[in-house]
Amino acid sequence: MANVLTPQGEDFPRWYQDVVAKAQLAENGPAKGQQVIRPTGFALWERMVDEMDARIKETGTENASFPLLIPESYFRREADHVEGFAPELWTVTHAGGKELEEKLAVRPTSETIIGEYMAKWVKSYRDLPLLLNQWCNVMRYELRTRLFLRSSEFLWQEGHTVHESYEDAHEFTLRILHDVYADFMENVLALPVLRGIKTEAERFAGALNTFAVEALMRDGKALQMGTSHELGQNFARAFDIQFQGKDGQQAHGWTTSWGTSTRMVGGLIMGHGDDSGLRVPPRLAPVQAYVMVVKDSDEVQGAAKQVFDELKSSGLRVKLDHRADVAFGRRAVDAELKGYPVRIEIGPRDLKNGEATLVSRVKGVKETVPLGMLAEAVAAALEGDQQALFDEALERRERLTADAATVDEAVEAAQTGYARLPWDACGVEGEQKAAAAGVTVRVLQREDGSVPDSLDEPGLIAYLARSY
Amino acid sequence: MANVLTPQGEDFPRWYQDVVAKAQLAENGPAKGQQVIRPTGFALWERMVDEMDARIKETGTENASFPLLIPESYFRREADHVEGFAPELWTVTHAGGKELEEKLAVRPTSETIIGEYMAKWVKSYRDLPLLLNQWCNVMRYELRTRLFLRSSEFLWQEGHTVHESYEDAHEFTLRILHDVYADFMENVLALPVLRGIKTEAERFAGALNTFAVEALMRDGKALQMGTSHELGQNFARAFDIQFQGKDGQQAHGWTTSWGTSTRMVGGLIMGHGDDSGLRVPPRLAPVQAYVMVVKDSDEVQGAAKQVFDELKSSGLRVKLDHRADVAFGRRAVDAELKGYPVRIEIGPRDLKNGEATLVSRVKGVKETVPLGMLAEAVAAALEGDQQALFDEALERRERLTADAATVDEAVEAAQTGYARLPWDACGVEGEQKAAAAGVTVRVLQREDGSVPDSLDEPGLIAYLARSY
Repeated sequence: MANVLTPQGEDFPRWYQDVVAKAQLAENGPAKGQQVIRPTGFALWERMVDEMDARIKETGTENASFPLLIPESYFRREADHVEGFAPELWTVTHAGGKELEEKLAVRPTSETIIGEYMAKWVKSYRDLPLLLNQWCNVMRYELRTRLFLRSSEFLWQEGHTVHESYEDAHEFTLRILHDVYADFMENVLALPVLRGIKTEAERFAGALNTFAVEALMRDGKALQMGTSHELGQNFARAFDIQFQGKDGQQAHGWTTSWGTSTRMVGGLIMGHGDDSGLRVPPRLAPVQAYVMVVKDSDEVQGAAKQVFDELKSSGLRVKLDHRADVAFGRRAVDAELKGYPVRIEIGPRDLKNGEATLVSRVKGVKETVPLGMLAEAVAAALEGDQQALFDEALERRERLTADAATVDEAVEAAQTGYARLPWDACGVEGEQKAAAAGVTVRVLQREDGSVPDSLDEPGLIAYLARSY
Repeated sequence: MANVLTPQGEDFPRWYQDVVAKAQLAENGPAKGQQVIRPTGFALWERMVDEMDARIKETGTENASFPLLIPESYFRREADHVEGFAPELWTVTHAGGKELEEKLAVRPTSETIIGEYMAKWVKSYRDLPLLLNQWCNVMRYELRTRLFLRSSEFLWQEGHTVHESYEDAHEFTLRILHDVYADFMENVLALPVLRGIKTEAERFAGALNTFAVEALMRDGKALQMGTSHELGQNFARAFDIQFQGKDGQQAHGWTTSWGTSTRMVGGLIMGHGDDSGLRVPPRLAPVQAYVMVVKDSDEVQGAAKQVFDELKSSGLRVKLDHRADVAFGRRAVDAELKGYPVRIEIGPRDLKNGEATLVSRVKGVKETVPLGMLAEAVAAALEGDQQALFDEALERRERLTADAATVDEAVEAAQTGYARLPWDACGVEGEQKAAAAGVTVRVLQREDGSVPDSLDEPGLIAYLARSY
């Protein structure tokens, strides 16, 4: 089969553009940096939402919905926050043909407007913790945009919580990082992630500490997959979120916020995709098994329908391709492009032997399987491929991670992956020097790989990389 | 128990406001007509989305995501459409601190921007039907707003499809009306709906025909619950959606669009709620069974947890209220307000006899049930209450529907419910006269209650009512 994609080794960014277009994942919108997410791409996001939402609810967090438009004055209440976000705002000035008294910003994130309501709802320690999340769209003005990775509008979830104490808020921030974000990314997306704390330069505007999960893409660049912020009492003070404590005293709450977005679709593409297209991990895949007729005949169509029904009733997500009027080769290439984990080809030759051909997208293995054993064989292939994708990504990350002793060494090593550098040997100055060379500190970890409580801990290790 | 709500009979709009506030469903946002949907209200919407989304997907429709902001020039391409929507637009004029070259409207609906992309994607009859849907937020400037019912921003689904012929598009428009909208509303929301066609005055801006489902609220006013529009070739011409037909000729597609919104939450409240609060139909209910401890003791807490686990593992949506430090009466009133279909009270007295108290919200019946039979009893209560709510709403609608022979009679009858009036005895002039008296034609049906194909059919019956 002819290459429909630019090979990754030739031009990775071009490969990415090709996959997004050819697998019909997304297109540019009419206004700057906006995106149209097509059904194939959106189905990936829908599955992410399902899996993430279940994990978010497990923490006791409830979903809600806050307004799209935020009065500009809200931003000004938290000094760091307004400084960080003011340059990125999209602004509504008119409605119903008239100029508004106060300009409204399309939300770039909702700490401010949610803070305003939290202040009304939180009166007593009995109201805490208050755990909220919303799935919505946000907009940030961007000069250089790339579909899924950096767009003016994107879809995301943003969690916002209030707690009684620093300890409670800190613990919850890390619970989201580990039990929701990292768990979803490693066990469903099959992408190993580095968990750590961000430097001051990379911290969320208005936060005390930002924690993040970062995945390594196949070109050796890092992608921030999600962040969880400890906001201290900064927003509680700015929005007057106070409660009466068990001791009868009024106190400001401790808030957190945390988000993941359609950017994860970009991470999925670049973390697993190969020269034939996407490779979607089975646990995520909207279509786990793709049942195709090879040629047209009543017998083939009947058998394909039967296999489809059988796999569907075994609980798998299955799609039936009965379009015998479209060339088989074209449909097979399209199935590879879209990364369906398992393809089942039903043709007259196999059928004569009571068999079908099973093709694994991850391993590229073709095998003929007796029809009666298909459900089992598909389940085994899916299980194996989920693990194989994770193992491959982990092995790649380990191979592309190098120890460095100086900033210069780290910048050099970061050309192909992660550089591990003692934070003492880097520091804010080293960070600036690396940044000038296009390399940033992605996260800081403890020596043993665990997540530090703050930047003040001694002996931290910095992971530097080029990034998206 | 003291009334926490204004009684419906005293002041229905006030009752509505009270329920929305006291059951913590929603609040006004900071900017005009915006709303904050709180977790209890949002959970109702989430369940609606789940049920509706499954039905939408059953039709072969796929979800996608299109940009929030639409260039103003897009609206001008369809003359009726721009006339209908221009006065309602919220407009973004600046981004990143600079004035935009072209103003962008926050989408009030997405026929235009989706039409632009459909034109790119549709080349051949093989690409048809193209069936798309998106769940998103939209904004329309409104002068008089009411939470859930009429707000500047609301959440909705909007379906957009392209078909090969008038017949295909017509059939699909009605399939959505019947199999998705009416089916969901009657079988899940337990609200009987009138299905019919809208008059020219009530038609969607740019449509050939608008079909609708309407429910009657407990105050005798109608609420439009959903609309399905046959757009003919109007948008296909405006956006150049053309395809090569089986005959090799280029032709314009036939498009449809259809929507339902968070307004349905308002319909649920006013269609079933009573003086004690919401009554949520069991099939919709985010919490079907609410397990409460009456008093605190290890035995009571243990038994409540056991009942909770048992009901949950039987597949029900259950919530456990173990807050013995909040007065039982207050929690019971709150459970009634929020309309949980079944409440299970676990107290020391019942436990001594190996029993618990089961309270049905719909029928108001209290019964003691042996612990071992709770799961069965709850399932039976839920089943019965779903039907009881529907029957009650249907009986009410029949009671509040009167035949009228003249417009004057219809206006009079519409003060308390629906007036059925032959369309020949009404017509456009009669419609205007009724409108001046605050009464509108909600839908037209055939004599036998079925949905007409167009307004040209003879002998149609108009349903007039006051409405939200």
